[in-house]
Amino acid sequence: MKQVKFWGIKPEIRVLGVDDGPFKPHSGGAALLVGAVFRGGRWIDGVLSTRVAVDGTDATRQIIEMVNRSKHKGQLRVIMTDGATFAGFNVVDIQDIFGKTGIPVIAVSKERPNLKEVKQAVKHLPDWRERWGVLKKAGRIYSVRTRAKAAPVHMQIAGIKKADAEQVVRLTATRSFVPEPLRVAHLIARGITYGESTKKI
Amino acid sequence: MKQVKFWGIKPEIRVLGVDDGPFKPHSGGAALLVGAVFRGGRWIDGVLSTRVAVDGTDATRQIIEMVNRSKHKGQLRVIMTDGATFAGFNVVDIQDIFGKTGIPVIAVSKERPNLKEVKQAVKHLPDWRERWGVLKKAGRIYSVRTRAKAAPVHMQIAGIKKADAEQVVRLTATRSFVPEPLRVAHLIARGITYGESTKKI
Repeated sequence: MKQVKFWGIKPEIRVLGVDDGPFKPHSGGAALLVGAVFRGGRWIDGVLSTRVAVDGTDATRQIIEMVNRSKHKGQLRVIMTDGATFAGFNVVDIQDIFGKTGIPVIAVSKERPNLKEVKQAVKHLPDWRERWGVLKKAGRIYSVRTRAKAAPVHMQIAGIKKADAEQVVRLTATRSFVPEPLRVAHLIARGITYGESTKKI
Repeated sequence: MKQVKFWGIKPEIRVLGVDDGPFKPHSGGAALLVGAVFRGGRWIDGVLSTRVAVDGTDATRQIIEMVNRSKHKGQLRVIMTDGATFAGFNVVDIQDIFGKTGIPVIAVSKERPNLKEVKQAVKHLPDWRERWGVLKKAGRIYSVRTRAKAAPVHMQIAGIKKADAEQVVRLTATRSFVPEPLRVAHLIARGITYGESTKKI
């Protein structure tokens, strides 16, 4: 697989964090998808958004389009997604996003993905073999410890070397053990959908 | 007028920045209103949102309700609004917000409000005398220079002394001459409404 060569990772490397808002499961509706453009783990430079179908198959395409139409695209060096599924089991093809944007992708999860459980759940959906194929294609799961006293996060990567991806994940985890672009994309997606970033579903 | 006494302003004082998203003028529709909860000028702790009617009269009430229902309310020390009108001429009564939330309010504008022009525009709307009364009640406009080489911002205040308000405005202007809670509320409101935080109307 092709990889982008990073000649040193600057503290203000532009990273897009992507997370979805809350949604009604099995509703046939859509979830808000938010992209937070960050300068490393320091501060926010822009906000992108789109919508993806609950349990649909459009997340990969929506992310590619959201990035490619953004005026921030020229500066973006890494795309980080919160895991590899949005709005239920709308699976994200990180290799395809890299291929069609030219920007390396790191899918970051707080919990180590349990592929056995995911497979059982995906099986209830139409086109489950395609969805499952995309999830398997995301490749090996690496654990990265961002803080000495916190649990590690888990990543899958496309278009970037493991060592470079680890460095970006650690560099951006400034306020929490979760990288800042993902922490803030999460706050925005919840806060806009609910009117309050921490209310429960 | 009652004022809150600040015993020193901490670098991580919790400040809510409130700004509206873009909207169709005279549409009879609504605009997104975003509240960004900040720790001083450093980082974002939460996101609140609501909607206000274009050229309506509900902005004051919507902000009061958004703040009073938030789990962040107990920590919030200052509310900053982007100017004193949202969604056209939906005017904000900063004294009323202070009175009904107990949290001091600073309305901050990049341009010095030209009250003569505003009065001419407001006159085309229903209840214009009430709107105009609210705008005049916001009181004296103070200029605050946040950066040595940038233009000043302009503020009107409720429930806070001029010197304390100046300190909060300067402390939070970390990334731009505009206080960070307002800069980021603006990025979020545009990014969610348009899908891109910088696209023009």
